[in-house]
Amino acid sequence: MDSAIELVSANKCFGGWQKRYRHRSSVLGCDMIFAIFLPPQADQGEPLPVLYWLSGLTCTDENFVQKAGAQRLAAELGMVVVAPDTSPRGEGVADDPQGAWDFGLGAGFYINATQQPWARHYQMYDYVVTELPALIEGNFPVSDRRAISGHSMGGHGALICALKNPGRYQSVSAFAPITNPVNCPWGHKAFGNYLGDDREQWKQWDACELIATAQERLPLLVDQGEADNFLAEQLKPEALEAAAAAAGHPLTLRRQAGYDHSYFFIASFIDDHLRHHARALGRL
Amino acid sequence: MDSAIELVSANKCFGGWQKRYRHRSSVLGCDMIFAIFLPPQADQGEPLPVLYWLSGLTCTDENFVQKAGAQRLAAELGMVVVAPDTSPRGEGVADDPQGAWDFGLGAGFYINATQQPWARHYQMYDYVVTELPALIEGNFPVSDRRAISGHSMGGHGALICALKNPGRYQSVSAFAPITNPVNCPWGHKAFGNYLGDDREQWKQWDACELIATAQERLPLLVDQGEADNFLAEQLKPEALEAAAAAAGHPLTLRRQAGYDHSYFFIASFIDDHLRHHARALGRL
Repeated sequence: MDSAIELVSANKCFGGWQKRYRHRSSVLGCDMIFAIFLPPQADQGEPLPVLYWLSGLTCTDENFVQKAGAQRLAAELGMVVVAPDTSPRGEGVADDPQGAWDFGLGAGFYINATQQPWARHYQMYDYVVTELPALIEGNFPVSDRRAISGHSMGGHGALICALKNPGRYQSVSAFAPITNPVNCPWGHKAFGNYLGDDREQWKQWDACELIATAQERLPLLVDQGEADNFLAEQLKPEALEAAAAAAGHPLTLRRQAGYDHSYFFIASFIDDHLRHHARALGRL
Repeated sequence: MDSAIELVSANKCFGGWQKRYRHRSSVLGCDMIFAIFLPPQADQGEPLPVLYWLSGLTCTDENFVQKAGAQRLAAELGMVVVAPDTSPRGEGVADDPQGAWDFGLGAGFYINATQQPWARHYQMYDYVVTELPALIEGNFPVSDRRAISGHSMGGHGALICALKNPGRYQSVSAFAPITNPVNCPWGHKAFGNYLGDDREQWKQWDACELIATAQERLPLLVDQGEADNFLAEQLKPEALEAAAAAAGHPLTLRRQAGYDHSYFFIASFIDDHLRHHARALGRL
């Protein structure tokens, strides 16, 4: 494995650095770019914890970094924030034949595809849970204390990564997550293509299914805008609420009146999520 | 004059609303879109002060709104923030013949053009100082207390709007402003085209010239990144410093080590500027 990383850009930000790096991903079989915010404390020797942020459909590593306003408080708290891309990229990476925005490029769903042509590159789960953290922990002054969060498709990603890996993350949260992909149109399309027709196989990538057998009771913090256009058909917070209640899994689900699916919603509540993670990571 | 405004979008944000409106501008002779942040206090009856934000080259009304993270503190302070576009827009509005990014569309320089074909639409000074505030004050729960700020070309705009209009703004600030357009390549190109060859005419649109005869000693707050690629050739903070010193005009010029020309720089210091304006506007 080639673990070299190449700096793409660096911008000083809140006393720290917002950077982008390109690297070769062996699990995805392509070059990838990730964003990393290094707070000012990164220069002081003490290994810092890392929050992984998973973005939603159509995003890259840049959306959260430019629009969420997370760096201000992350700089105060001394937390590194890493934002990967949302799918494998580049020539030779299969895309939706119709170029749709809800599948293929920009829509990896943070799962490991089993069906061709997708399986060749679409292994975002292994990338996010294993390869990328190893790269981060080998190249930056960080500890192995990790948190994970995300938005929409990335909220689904954060929930499944945490639920499937007891002990790997100290905390988890999500904004407007796709809670139950086995029961919504986005999930049907993505899972049907990436995983094939056997719906039993889908369940290992569904937060509502995973919560029933979770080996760790990591408290879930979820914010959901009540004016979100995707609420009823795609996101289904009530499904997560029911699954958590049935399993006795701790869930704080906040329904935010008037808020939609945009980054204006995320920006409005990102500080609460950062503090939630900082408490679990020993930074508050 | 048709003062009707048409809502383009509305996103709840930090308890208030981030909105975009389209309207017919009579001074520009085209349809324009502006952004307005209405903090939660806008629902409470008391007229609120307004901060006008002028963006830089290539921007629209959206860059600041999406990237600066100003809404968080503006919501706390109870300040309305209005961000206009950076030039007239639409079919029939002349653009740089080569489609350059530093002149024409997205580059109105906040002056009133006197040369054709520019003079027909490029009257951004009158739009920003007069027409837009009248529209805002006629349609939203705001007072006539105003502040103005901006970035790069918009920092130049904020400085000249304040310096030319004693009593109209309670405070002014700028990020990386083009301080002395009569003496830099961006200014030469824009002023030469918009205003013609008579360089005496240029001086009425140059902060360093205006500061010498300013009728009001409004304190200037300016942040300038020391790693800004445009620093020496285009921005020239030392020219503003010398002009302010010569005139005895109060100036706080902060040279920020390591920061560049990007919105990561603006986001890092926007709270200081909001507090500077809030103090002058009676919100702190």
